[in-house]
Amino acid sequence: MELYSGYINKLIEQFAKLPGIGSKSAQRLALHIINMPPDHVEHFAHIMVEARKNVHYCKNCFTLTDKEICPICANLKRDHKMIMVVENIRDLAAYEKTGKYDGVYHVLHGAISPMLGVGPNDIKLKELVKRLEEEVDEVIIATNSSLEGETTAMYISKLIKPIGVKVTRIASGVPVGGDLECIDEITLLRALEGRTEL
Amino acid sequence: MELYSGYINKLIEQFAKLPGIGSKSAQRLALHIINMPPDHVEHFAHIMVEARKNVHYCKNCFTLTDKEICPICANLKRDHKMIMVVENIRDLAAYEKTGKYDGVYHVLHGAISPMLGVGPNDIKLKELVKRLEEEVDEVIIATNSSLEGETTAMYISKLIKPIGVKVTRIASGVPVGGDLECIDEITLLRALEGRTEL
Repeated sequence: MELYSGYINKLIEQFAKLPGIGSKSAQRLALHIINMPPDHVEHFAHIMVEARKNVHYCKNCFTLTDKEICPICANLKRDHKMIMVVENIRDLAAYEKTGKYDGVYHVLHGAISPMLGVGPNDIKLKELVKRLEEEVDEVIIATNSSLEGETTAMYISKLIKPIGVKVTRIASGVPVGGDLECIDEITLLRALEGRTEL
Repeated sequence: MELYSGYINKLIEQFAKLPGIGSKSAQRLALHIINMPPDHVEHFAHIMVEARKNVHYCKNCFTLTDKEICPICANLKRDHKMIMVVENIRDLAAYEKTGKYDGVYHVLHGAISPMLGVGPNDIKLKELVKRLEEEVDEVIIATNSSLEGETTAMYISKLIKPIGVKVTRIASGVPVGGDLECIDEITLLRALEGRTEL
């Protein structure tokens, strides 16, 4: 567009490449940057580059860290015999925020999806199996309850059970505070199947 | 949070300061940056700093540019005797995208708001009056149709009319309370066509 200078257009372009940022948001963010104090912008840019440079996967659970082992894996107070398997780091963050889970994690970085051509070798599954060489009591599968998440859960279960490790799946049902009439039929049926005695 | 390294937390913090970015979006964006190729991140950071460094207000209309005069003001094919007054650059962008307006602009960078303590001297009004020393046929007031926008329109009208310049206001085809940048082009054009003298 003629109306912006080359610099602004380039900055809008960069923002628009980020996930969930449309062209209007990108414009809003770029104009905000232009109006920020220059040293704040430099600080932001510096942090971006430094974060990218220093952060990598934890050797153990594949979450992100700037050390060799992430703080969760390095924490001896946590139960290292209980591994929760999640699709991505945001899912790990979601459980971690509850503050009530004291086991460790394993981040798959994806889910098996024949549609998208993602196979078992494209996610951190071999690495999970390798971790079971040490003593593990339970593997909790907390992949999403989407088609891909369920497929992945089934696959992991078949893979791990023969090793002799207990495999569990987080419950799927009506969310707390959820209104029954707003919930889809599959969830309602699953909540029914998974009913527990009171 | 223990779960992220210091670098990621700092990056999330930076993103969360941007307008319209909540804590979850900030997390998503930061994790995306960490997964981008390092040279792409450096390029993004570089563009951010360069844009901030090189972009400033056009001396004439106060939109952003990296030259002394913006491309719109420098364009001799446009009608320099018709000035559209807008609150901010995104509003200018919204009209410019219609591709049908061939006058020039004046960006106020705000609107008069007694509530927020923004007075006539806090926006680029003196600068607008100064531009009227040269021959101008019409000033089109395209401030938002919010309380602040209408107040500003009335103020400008009272200020400019005595100078003997025709002052018009875009039609209220624009929904009351609506933000110019969010409105479709046809409505914007209709509002332009239906402008009335104040």
